[in-house]
Amino acid sequence: MESRPRPSARRAVVLLSGGLDSATTLALAIEQGFESYALTVRYGQRHAVEVDRAVAQAQALGARAHRVVDLDLGFVGGSALTDPGIDVPKGRTDEQVESGIPPTYVPARNTVFLSLALAWAEGLGACDLFLGVNAVDYSGYPDCRPEFIEAFETLANRATKLGVESRPFRIHAPLLHWTKARIVQEADRLGIDVSRTVSCYDPGPAGEPCGRCDACVLRARGFREAGLVDPTAGVRRADS
Amino acid sequence: MESRPRPSARRAVVLLSGGLDSATTLALAIEQGFESYALTVRYGQRHAVEVDRAVAQAQALGARAHRVVDLDLGFVGGSALTDPGIDVPKGRTDEQVESGIPPTYVPARNTVFLSLALAWAEGLGACDLFLGVNAVDYSGYPDCRPEFIEAFETLANRATKLGVESRPFRIHAPLLHWTKARIVQEADRLGIDVSRTVSCYDPGPAGEPCGRCDACVLRARGFREAGLVDPTAGVRRADS
Repeated sequence: MESRPRPSARRAVVLLSGGLDSATTLALAIEQGFESYALTVRYGQRHAVEVDRAVAQAQALGARAHRVVDLDLGFVGGSALTDPGIDVPKGRTDEQVESGIPPTYVPARNTVFLSLALAWAEGLGACDLFLGVNAVDYSGYPDCRPEFIEAFETLANRATKLGVESRPFRIHAPLLHWTKARIVQEADRLGIDVSRTVSCYDPGPAGEPCGRCDACVLRARGFREAGLVDPTAGVRRADS
Repeated sequence: MESRPRPSARRAVVLLSGGLDSATTLALAIEQGFESYALTVRYGQRHAVEVDRAVAQAQALGARAHRVVDLDLGFVGGSALTDPGIDVPKGRTDEQVESGIPPTYVPARNTVFLSLALAWAEGLGACDLFLGVNAVDYSGYPDCRPEFIEAFETLANRATKLGVESRPFRIHAPLLHWTKARIVQEADRLGIDVSRTVSCYDPGPAGEPCGRCDACVLRARGFREAGLVDPTAGVRRADS
């Protein structure tokens, strides 16, 4: 009887938001044998409950460690996710969701998050970064596209001591070209407790989804097309 | 008699550390007519007094606004500037200063700082970022080199809504190819109060330089070669 190959002890830093996509990404990194260090940023988001979900997922999935970094991006302005004065769009059609960059875009957010992941990775001696961006069923954010990932990988290898010393950084975005339906199927296969993920941009205090923002619309379509039931879809925030 | 051209109202974000180089950079941005927004990060640095100096410089030089962002990089580890357990090297020769990347390197620091500057710039509708890195009389940090600046500029234009909408970001590093002596001369020409800048990696509580770390060695050489006197050089921290 052959023993299964011992998982590699290579370390990776995984950005974890508490949503479905990043939880799936963390599970994939662990499945690939990476000793995974999860990183969550408390950036002043409207949906702060997602940090609690990130803590739960990091523990349930077996991250080696989990850091929650405080960085209030409120000073940046210009986003519905960090500025209570800008409304999260709701009730948009599929067509509207897919046209243009919506006000839920947070300026340079993934650049900031990847920079922090890069800093921690270099401190840990890890050369692999994972993030759960998706360029198929998404909101048109510029920092969720392949050309962004490529540019960050180039930057990482010029910006750091490890990169310069020829231990190349790799940015992994395993969901990049998947449909939301495939992400839902993979989350199911990987045994993720999706009831403890939150995708909604404007959830209630206990994480109840509004059911009407773009993120809820995309998530609902994913579950529908995957032929699976979203356990969070039955609970709605009171004012929805 | 011709009137001088009216300065452009274009906005720029300028990274300001409280050191000589970034103060000079801010003064240059203002001289070039940019309405300048200064950004300082309180990142858990050993030399926290530099934040006070940044506040003083932003005010004295006429920044339009100044933000100090709290982001504790202590979790990253691996640097003498953020980890009290790692000593700042002192008393090194010029040759030692110029060989290899020293333990004062903070993993991915300039990537993190530029990311924050990019986020704020996009919120402000500014397409110009300034930082005071130098690749001549410097400590060999990878994120102070031209190839780093170029890679970040490419990234900025792929990562953001403004960049994608063809309002290209430019990363200005006006000191990049200058000697420290030239920086000192420009600071003098621009009327910067250099007594209110701190370059030392390990200053005393009131900003007294140690006189022996790499930053002090490089600064002293710059003033010597410029034929100017550094008003901060006469005050030494008690244990130096």
